Amino acid sequence: MSRLVMKFGGTSVADLERIRRVARLVNAEVLAGHQVAVVVSAMSGKTNELVAWTDGSGAAAAGLPPSDDEYDVVVASGEQVTAGLLAMTLRNMGVSARSWMGWQIPIIADDAHGRARIDDISPEKLGGAMDAGEVAVIAGFQGVTRDGRIATLGRGGSDTSAVAIAAALGAPCDIYTDVDGVYTTDPRIESKARKLARISYEEMLEMASLGAKVLQTRSVELAMAYKVPLRVLSSFVEPGEAPGQGTIVCDEEDIVEKRIVSGVAYSRDEAKISLFGLPDHPGVSSAIFGALADANVNVDMIVQSKARTADTANMEFTVGKRDAQRAVEIVRAAQPQIGFLDIAVNDDVAKVSVIGVGMRSHTGVAKSMFQALAEKGVNIQVISTSEIKISVLIDAAYTELAVRALHAAYGLDQL
Amino acid sequence: MSRLVMKFGGTSVADLERIRRVARLVNAEVLAGHQVAVVVSAMSGKTNELVAWTDGSGAAAAGLPPSDDEYDVVVASGEQVTAGLLAMTLRNMGVSARSWMGWQIPIIADDAHGRARIDDISPEKLGGAMDAGEVAVIAGFQGVTRDGRIATLGRGGSDTSAVAIAAALGAPCDIYTDVDGVYTTDPRIESKARKLARISYEEMLEMASLGAKVLQTRSVELAMAYKVPLRVLSSFVEPGEAPGQGTIVCDEEDIVEKRIVSGVAYSRDEAKISLFGLPDHPGVSSAIFGALADANVNVDMIVQSKARTADTANMEFTVGKRDAQRAVEIVRAAQPQIGFLDIAVNDDVAKVSVIGVGMRSHTGVAKSMFQALAEKGVNIQVISTSEIKISVLIDAAYTELAVRALHAAYGLDQL
Repeated sequence: MSRLVMKFGGTSVADLERIRRVARLVNAEVLAGHQVAVVVSAMSGKTNELVAWTDGSGAAAAGLPPSDDEYDVVVASGEQVTAGLLAMTLRNMGVSARSWMGWQIPIIADDAHGRARIDDISPEKLGGAMDAGEVAVIAGFQGVTRDGRIATLGRGGSDTSAVAIAAALGAPCDIYTDVDGVYTTDPRIESKARKLARISYEEMLEMASLGAKVLQTRSVELAMAYKVPLRVLSSFVEPGEAPGQGTIVCDEEDIVEKRIVSGVAYSRDEAKISLFGLPDHPGVSSAIFGALADANVNVDMIVQSKARTADTANMEFTVGKRDAQRAVEIVRAAQPQIGFLDIAVNDDVAKVSVIGVGMRSHTGVAKSMFQALAEKGVNIQVISTSEIKISVLIDAAYTELAVRALHAAYGLDQL
Repeated sequence: MSRLVMKFGGTSVADLERIRRVARLVNAEVLAGHQVAVVVSAMSGKTNELVAWTDGSGAAAAGLPPSDDEYDVVVASGEQVTAGLLAMTLRNMGVSARSWMGWQIPIIADDAHGRARIDDISPEKLGGAMDAGEVAVIAGFQGVTRDGRIATLGRGGSDTSAVAIAAALGAPCDIYTDVDGVYTTDPRIESKARKLARISYEEMLEMASLGAKVLQTRSVELAMAYKVPLRVLSSFVEPGEAPGQGTIVCDEEDIVEKRIVSGVAYSRDEAKISLFGLPDHPGVSSAIFGALADANVNVDMIVQSKARTADTANMEFTVGKRDAQRAVEIVRAAQPQIGFLDIAVNDDVAKVSVIGVGMRSHTGVAKSMFQALAEKGVNIQVISTSEIKISVLIDAAYTELAVRALHAAYGLDQL
């Protein structure tokens, strides 16, 4: 009997009818001879309701930070409800099942409440129950600290729970979601987007962190580190229908048909901050980005350019849109140390990226990108690259145009 | 520093504004020098929502009993949410606090899921935190079985949690509810009803089991067994206002001013079943009530009378209204063993009771009761008595009239 971890997100368990659909998918894997562990999220909307209550508990009014350990107590209850309901539903279909909370397994997490990391999972009790023929229904998104408090893993943490449990059980992990796989780009923007049969962990990681919301970044990192075979597939299938093959996320070597570019991602969550008239001497960058790092503001793209007047420079960088105002305040406060003349912020920008492990061995990918964008009259504001991706910052109004142009330029509609 | 347990029911924590009111009441006790443990129920309406989901999980459709251990997983989440929110709210008011689930204390319960009983409470960790100056906010209604599963104590179980924790901590227990104490009768029926300053455990037990819904019966039993001083008082006070003295539930010896009758209770939850033409020989009662007991149907009042024809008898008894139809079916199925001629059910009845420890030493209480009812033309269908109460079954239409007549007859409006 081979083991299998299945994970279902909030939209897949949004109501009792969908939970029954999930139960049928689980049962199909049991009948196919698998020992199944199912990881579930809270019913869609429930986490937001719980979070709103914690917001209303007076922290903001009192000018205090939220009590993160108690926030976790409240918010983790959502997954508990789904786990109990799915276990009941499975039993009512004649499938042996029981629910497991993070503290019952246990899934040991650190005490960074609200964004905890999993330290250790003891698979013995869980594996024993599965060996005995019982489906293990696991509340995602939660663990327990070494001193016995509930800790949650942050938004999207159920993906991480599922991959970590798969790693502990030595099992592959099927992530069921509301789409039937990973696409070359967002099908809502480009109807010619194709589903990928396979994608490498590294590409998936770039896709996830560059705006494709199929999988949480940390879960992909974890899968890559522990070589957990991942699969993304749809839970939205009718009774009796199979969920299809989805997209397999695996090692680069396990992909036979190599592509230079696998996908085009985009994100509208960025804001660009521009600093003008910086003194052109060492230590300036350190003064700017040191201040931002101290305040936990994540900086993504950075470009520095010589100003037309000989002895000053300009600097442009991007931060998350919700951090933009705070970043401006921090930089303004450090003005005496930095010494710039003017600052501007622009949040009407988008980041568009092409991703592909083939870039490592093929030249000319960047050239094709810039050419395709130039042909459509799209102006590039900032460029950043890594080994397997190229990102450009453009005017947000051009997002769809740029995505479609790049999708065509790399022949992704003809996979 | 003396310890104190405070308990707040679902209507007292129904929304964030009420939770803040609860936090102020807790803070007042902290400022008065108490080490406080607070036991909370689920927010009003939440338990019903969770129970409805478990009903919808397919048990009924599949013709199966609900999975009680998973039912408990789902339903116990309601108290978890309240406990987290109250702990956050207290901290935001500057009061040191943390939440405790049943499994964290632990409160060890048996595995009769959905109606579990508390076996044991380890007060060490809880007491240690309280000694360190932290308010313990405890999720009511829940414990953990010896093999680590969540178990709930049944409806109203948070009262039982609170009293059991008070017993384990050696502390008194204040039960906050939506009324400001225990009344001589229901003030919605008799506006002259008076709040009792004190009532004995035994009287409270009769009041609770006879329909006064202020406290859950099991919690009063537990308080009596462990001599936990109980107090019932209102959580519905404005900021800055004190909650008043409420009603103290205590040992009979601690009540200086003895009364013959302390209160008048009523219940409309009964149904009367009548059997006609029973053979008048030994074993008939046993055949009827044995069959009902085997099916877990609780029988309350019983009266047997000789029929006018010499050799048969009639029997009348009451059961809970929701069990009535089932009871009739059970008795019908046992007809061959019992041998009655006819059966009738009447659920348009009410039980009215007078309660008082003074009955033990005073005669004439029953006579006054029958006389007061006769004066108002109320016909008595069945009578049952215990050492400290007399109950009569009457036509439901006369309920209010009977309650008011008895309240006046025993001078309860002039306490």
